[in-house]
Amino acid sequence: MASLPSPEEDSQQLKKAFIGLGTDEDAIIEILGLRDVNQRKKIRETYHQLYNETLFDGLTKEISGDFEKAVTLWTYDPCERDARLANEALKSKKMGTKHLEIIVEMSCASSPQHLVAVRKAYCALFDCSIEEDILVSVPMPLRKILVGLVTSYRYDKEMVDKDVANLEANRLHEAIETKELAHDDVVYILSTRNFYQLRATFERYKEKHGNPIDEDIMKSGKGDLESLLKMIILCIDSPEKHFAEVVGTAILGLGTDEDSLTRAIISRAEIDMMKVKSEYLNIYKSNLDDAVIGDTFGEYRKFLVTLLGGKI
Amino acid sequence: MASLPSPEEDSQQLKKAFIGLGTDEDAIIEILGLRDVNQRKKIRETYHQLYNETLFDGLTKEISGDFEKAVTLWTYDPCERDARLANEALKSKKMGTKHLEIIVEMSCASSPQHLVAVRKAYCALFDCSIEEDILVSVPMPLRKILVGLVTSYRYDKEMVDKDVANLEANRLHEAIETKELAHDDVVYILSTRNFYQLRATFERYKEKHGNPIDEDIMKSGKGDLESLLKMIILCIDSPEKHFAEVVGTAILGLGTDEDSLTRAIISRAEIDMMKVKSEYLNIYKSNLDDAVIGDTFGEYRKFLVTLLGGKI
Repeated sequence: MASLPSPEEDSQQLKKAFIGLGTDEDAIIEILGLRDVNQRKKIRETYHQLYNETLFDGLTKEISGDFEKAVTLWTYDPCERDARLANEALKSKKMGTKHLEIIVEMSCASSPQHLVAVRKAYCALFDCSIEEDILVSVPMPLRKILVGLVTSYRYDKEMVDKDVANLEANRLHEAIETKELAHDDVVYILSTRNFYQLRATFERYKEKHGNPIDEDIMKSGKGDLESLLKMIILCIDSPEKHFAEVVGTAILGLGTDEDSLTRAIISRAEIDMMKVKSEYLNIYKSNLDDAVIGDTFGEYRKFLVTLLGGKI
Repeated sequence: MASLPSPEEDSQQLKKAFIGLGTDEDAIIEILGLRDVNQRKKIRETYHQLYNETLFDGLTKEISGDFEKAVTLWTYDPCERDARLANEALKSKKMGTKHLEIIVEMSCASSPQHLVAVRKAYCALFDCSIEEDILVSVPMPLRKILVGLVTSYRYDKEMVDKDVANLEANRLHEAIETKELAHDDVVYILSTRNFYQLRATFERYKEKHGNPIDEDIMKSGKGDLESLLKMIILCIDSPEKHFAEVVGTAILGLGTDEDSLTRAIISRAEIDMMKVKSEYLNIYKSNLDDAVIGDTFGEYRKFLVTLLGGKI
């Protein structure tokens, strides 16, 4: 295997790709698309030192559209990326819950360390805490649940108490029956328990009450609160399934939802993309890579396929 | 100025103080009491490497009582120290709010970075999140407020919005008037706003509604909820005044409350002890150092006085 170019060499190649007649998009894809999170960090720093401009300034002058969005998101440090995506979601003032996915993902499908790093990046970038922006932008009772989630710092090892799982499965069932889905107890359970414990609780719920908890929630109502809780439960229970569905929904709907597609692939490319692909195959009976190729175009397609580990 | 001994030399001197006939307490005081947080960390690591036992094992075999408690708390990394103190408080199952001071202090009189580090240490030491232990050990509505506080990650620069201060001063006033002190809004205000913003809000409260907010709270009731809120407001508004009062109360009551005295001095020795001393003088018209000397004995006294920067 050829040894990796140094951050200096990568920066020089990127600069070369930016200048001259036309932009060398392939070079951008081949350099940034094939560097891991630490290598990209070094390239960002080195490029800045060498050329006295940020790599982002270099990139955004030369590329545009979905390709630009994807490359810049990929080039940010992951905690800065999520802080920016969360801020964009909160500022969008959209209705519903779809745009809040990023906040659920960073809280329920990431490590507690990553979540805290995102909160720190958020403060540094936007001069207030993410909680403050949630309080302004998200209506009750979604607000209450999201504040609970983003402020969590869960124990991160496998530690399951079966009695707690039983007790809390019952408490969740009661909350669903009485339609008190945003009760303090529900928020506390979902935002303080570790992921292993919560999975055991959801399993116990199904054993004891007959249906998966997310199905019971969706039977109890069709509002934003129910959708949000379903999203939370899926992110906790199976992040790979959640992200497979984000990709599937982005592709299979009328027109492509590039923002969601980009976010899902970039978020998970270095975490659990193999699992996401296998879940995708499982749900949609087709190949995730093929689906992405069939539904995207040009440099944007090339870049995503590179992140997915393929060649085009 | 003589140069500082290396961590190896300090470790050797400590080992020497532990072995032999009787323990050389003065050496322990002079070494550990005069090393800053980073130096103590290096000594912990070096001692462990050199003697294949932790410094804590060495210490606790040789010293006891309040002196032992103070020296070990001082020797822990500050985030581990606070995690242990918080755990002890939560496991004590005491009534009232006095024992919850440590949790308020780490949330309202510390940096957001320190608070997160304490939560991380708590998970590592006690196999669950601090939130989970609060939910088990603290009754409602104190529980709700403490969970809000410990999960905060406040913006940490000076950023004050006067309109927000005005609005939230009114909201707090309304909550006090209607005796809804644990309303979601109150918890959100106290646990998401930065300290500068909150101080502006409390000031606006006084301007507009005539009394300091903590006085109005205490007029509205005499329960645990009111005491807890008063403690929170004081920690946010003036940590040095809070700690001066902790020392004062520990000393001036019937008998000395050594645990509180130790905690206050050890927590603030490297942060704002000069300010605490000046607040103490202001409140009690006497010197904090003299008060400590007058109310403590033996090695414990010597150690505290060393931390306070004095000689005995």
